[in-house]
Amino acid sequence: MAGELMRAEIAEQPETLARLLDEGLPEIREVAAQIRGLRPHTVLLAARGTSDHAALFAKYLLEVRLGLPVGLASPSTVTVYGGRPRYDGVLAVAVSQSGVSPDLVDWLRASGSAGACTVAVTNGRGSELQRVAQLHVDVRAGAERAVAATKTFTGELLALDLLVDALAGGDGSAAGSLPRLVAQTLELEPTLAALAVRYRFAERLVAIGRGLAYPVAREAALKLMETSYLVAHAFSGADLMHGPLAMLEPGYPVLAVAPPGAGAEALAPVLARLAEIGADLLVLGGEGPDDGPVLRVGLPECREEHGVVVAAVAAQLLALHVARVKGLDPDAPRGLRKVTQTR
Amino acid sequence: MAGELMRAEIAEQPETLARLLDEGLPEIREVAAQIRGLRPHTVLLAARGTSDHAALFAKYLLEVRLGLPVGLASPSTVTVYGGRPRYDGVLAVAVSQSGVSPDLVDWLRASGSAGACTVAVTNGRGSELQRVAQLHVDVRAGAERAVAATKTFTGELLALDLLVDALAGGDGSAAGSLPRLVAQTLELEPTLAALAVRYRFAERLVAIGRGLAYPVAREAALKLMETSYLVAHAFSGADLMHGPLAMLEPGYPVLAVAPPGAGAEALAPVLARLAEIGADLLVLGGEGPDDGPVLRVGLPECREEHGVVVAAVAAQLLALHVARVKGLDPDAPRGLRKVTQTR
Repeated sequence: MAGELMRAEIAEQPETLARLLDEGLPEIREVAAQIRGLRPHTVLLAARGTSDHAALFAKYLLEVRLGLPVGLASPSTVTVYGGRPRYDGVLAVAVSQSGVSPDLVDWLRASGSAGACTVAVTNGRGSELQRVAQLHVDVRAGAERAVAATKTFTGELLALDLLVDALAGGDGSAAGSLPRLVAQTLELEPTLAALAVRYRFAERLVAIGRGLAYPVAREAALKLMETSYLVAHAFSGADLMHGPLAMLEPGYPVLAVAPPGAGAEALAPVLARLAEIGADLLVLGGEGPDDGPVLRVGLPECREEHGVVVAAVAAQLLALHVARVKGLDPDAPRGLRKVTQTR
Repeated sequence: MAGELMRAEIAEQPETLARLLDEGLPEIREVAAQIRGLRPHTVLLAARGTSDHAALFAKYLLEVRLGLPVGLASPSTVTVYGGRPRYDGVLAVAVSQSGVSPDLVDWLRASGSAGACTVAVTNGRGSELQRVAQLHVDVRAGAERAVAATKTFTGELLALDLLVDALAGGDGSAAGSLPRLVAQTLELEPTLAALAVRYRFAERLVAIGRGLAYPVAREAALKLMETSYLVAHAFSGADLMHGPLAMLEPGYPVLAVAPPGAGAEALAPVLARLAEIGADLLVLGGEGPDDGPVLRVGLPECREEHGVVVAAVAAQLLALHVARVKGLDPDAPRGLRKVTQTR
């Protein structure tokens, strides 16, 4: 059946996340201890594609929990423009499933030469990115064979959550229930497969989220682009109101990523405005009954930072089934290879 | 005629930019001198919508010219999540045409309380954002009445370019020819109006750029969303290759923002790949003859940081005429007001 690879890797996630908690946590705590010793004043993160969404999630967590200034680096300022960074006191983190994209390798190497403490977050060991980094976190998701990244994404989310938690003085125990929550989410597959049917002829979609959920809205859009060729556009709830709202005509499909928490509360007025416009709204993580054009998929209750991981799994299942309903094979997206190298 | 307000403000730009150079440069140099005295180790920028694209332009320039770590702030980590920033040694810059969006005001106030040196970049004086900032830069574009921001965008680009130039020890003279270059670009209006016709039935478009031109690709996409309701999606050339490429079928309209420079050189392999796929490619700033499906609009020659301003003006004219060709009034986009306030 089309997408069997992707589906198998989605289904593996309770196991891969449990392994990261069991085997990876000591490594992450040791990396955090070394970082804390250096007392960085600023954090920069660099990544591409799906990993960029994990990096954005880490940015929100770092700002909320540590209060440090955080930036997503633009590798091209080093690799294309030859900028010479001055990064004393900076923590530089590159996130990459494969650890081979030359722009990330060059950026992390340049950051280290410029004085930064450098960390590579990759799936597996022995990559070039790990070699140029001072510290390394392995997300331990096992080989990922589907082109559409799934288990490496949630692995990166959890690894970065654990790293930020350790930097903030936590012991990682809050994440202990995540494998079980993800297993519960997998049971929503029939619901999500049934909802996927209504997108059979959809050609476009807007995905939205606010705060911690915004990176997952971006990842949901990317999965739909990659596997279903849907023109899927992600916005933070706030940015949507500054212009793009104009393009949303009645019936425009909108996927809201809104696991319970402060992000969902801040998104509520945006959802109300979208309902007013007559957008076709599907809310992942919504509460309350379906309400005319607003459909809701309840997700297991938990802390918001884990709720967004759970929502990511629901979005993966939705993307898988939208591709199938459209007669596409999400394991063979046109024009893509598993590892993309950019400079 | 539809869009007369927007068109008049596009046409004003040689004058508004000249005023900023004449009257604004001393103020900007004074602000830069005060910032240099504080020797910030990190820069954070916050903005929404069009101004966010100007902030992203500044991020690239700061990384390339000063080598400082730079981040685009996520105001929600303060306004929604109650994060408590520690910003000693940080330069915090909020960019906003109106200076009234509560999330930016709250973020800049919180940044100042957290130890940052705070700068507001706004169009005009007396806004709340200016009141909470320690330093202020006025982009002096005059009242902007069209909903689609044009002259305030190029004003923000130039103000930020001058600020970074002054921080890097420059005297601002490199930008002296920009008003003339923009005037030359306005003469391309008939060419761009003729090109707009081919988008009469386009419903979607991808805008791309790399490096300094990427923020302008994002702004071009936003203008097309706001005024023509085109589903316009912007990607950096590098990010496009990491997944979204799959959704581009033959004939997919792509607008490349590529004024001559390192960014355009880095974009060249992406354009080659798009030509291979059979995308319908219009290059703003391209060199060489039109070539089958690849159309090129040559722009005046200049430094890359000013070439992207010039390209922004060309994109504004294109968006204006696409809206007209579609029978829409870009001065009255549905669902939008001039000033958007988000929390």
